[in-house]
Amino acid sequence: MGRSADYSKQKCAIAATLDIVGEPWTLLILRDAFRGLSRFEQWQDSLGLARNVLASRLKSLIRNGVLEPRVYCERPRRQEYLLTEKGYELRPIILHMMDWGERHVYGEQQAESELVHACGHHLTPVVHCAHCDAALQRGDITVVHNTQSPSIGEMQEKRQLSA
Amino acid sequence: MGRSADYSKQKCAIAATLDIVGEPWTLLILRDAFRGLSRFEQWQDSLGLARNVLASRLKSLIRNGVLEPRVYCERPRRQEYLLTEKGYELRPIILHMMDWGERHVYGEQQAESELVHACGHHLTPVVHCAHCDAALQRGDITVVHNTQSPSIGEMQEKRQLSA
Repeated sequence: MGRSADYSKQKCAIAATLDIVGEPWTLLILRDAFRGLSRFEQWQDSLGLARNVLASRLKSLIRNGVLEPRVYCERPRRQEYLLTEKGYELRPIILHMMDWGERHVYGEQQAESELVHACGHHLTPVVHCAHCDAALQRGDITVVHNTQSPSIGEMQEKRQLSA
Repeated sequence: MGRSADYSKQKCAIAATLDIVGEPWTLLILRDAFRGLSRFEQWQDSLGLARNVLASRLKSLIRNGVLEPRVYCERPRRQEYLLTEKGYELRPIILHMMDWGERHVYGEQQAESELVHACGHHLTPVVHCAHCDAALQRGDITVVHNTQSPSIGEMQEKRQLSA
């Protein structure tokens, strides 16, 4: 726990997401899951992480319902880890991180991989509003506050009590 | 540096983004910047962070061109920190984190704040392809590999040599 922030007093959906995927390496584990990796050794090859760190990250992603284990061999017993629907829905975050890194860090140099959309062109993701379908513009979002919100820590306590 | 991952061997635009915004608290500092916060004390009130941690995060965001300092009072000299265009373009990442946290962590409970689009409805962000304008579907993205890519560490060295 020492390597991550304590967001438990925050009452915010962004902090709630970071509480699950904000640990170092977690989003790269998920990047690899979106590219089809599902086995411990594959992630170790890809990331060069210490076994205990990788094991702890996978365990936390399973506990939070982002990955689910599936036995692919009975003897010897071997498990792989697949994205759940909840995990799959992290894809937009990863796509936008990739886009930002390409444009603002790699710039004219090429990153190791590039995403191509089914239309045949490089994928540049653009956010639209699900309701009116318009692409978002600068200054078209308003923040509405809700004072009754529980903190992340309070929700965790509630989940533990009901478990 | 002990609290963050060393992504320097990665050759990936997602890791390049995390290298800049992946430290604990950094995305919450940016969340607050999108809500209009720009002063040291405002962030301290909002996040309850130790002064040295907050100062180090702001310094790193300025060095990486995500925030820029602006003097708003000459005597006594006071600075505030505003999002640059590069910083503003992190907005989609934050919007999707908020959406995911609302749906998958808060669920039926309400988070402290909610985003409303100019059309008058709750903002549910949906990713479209900038080229063909279609909303992304499952399985419609292909990863293309590029073997000539520099690692994040190599790019950092190059930037230091040219600075």
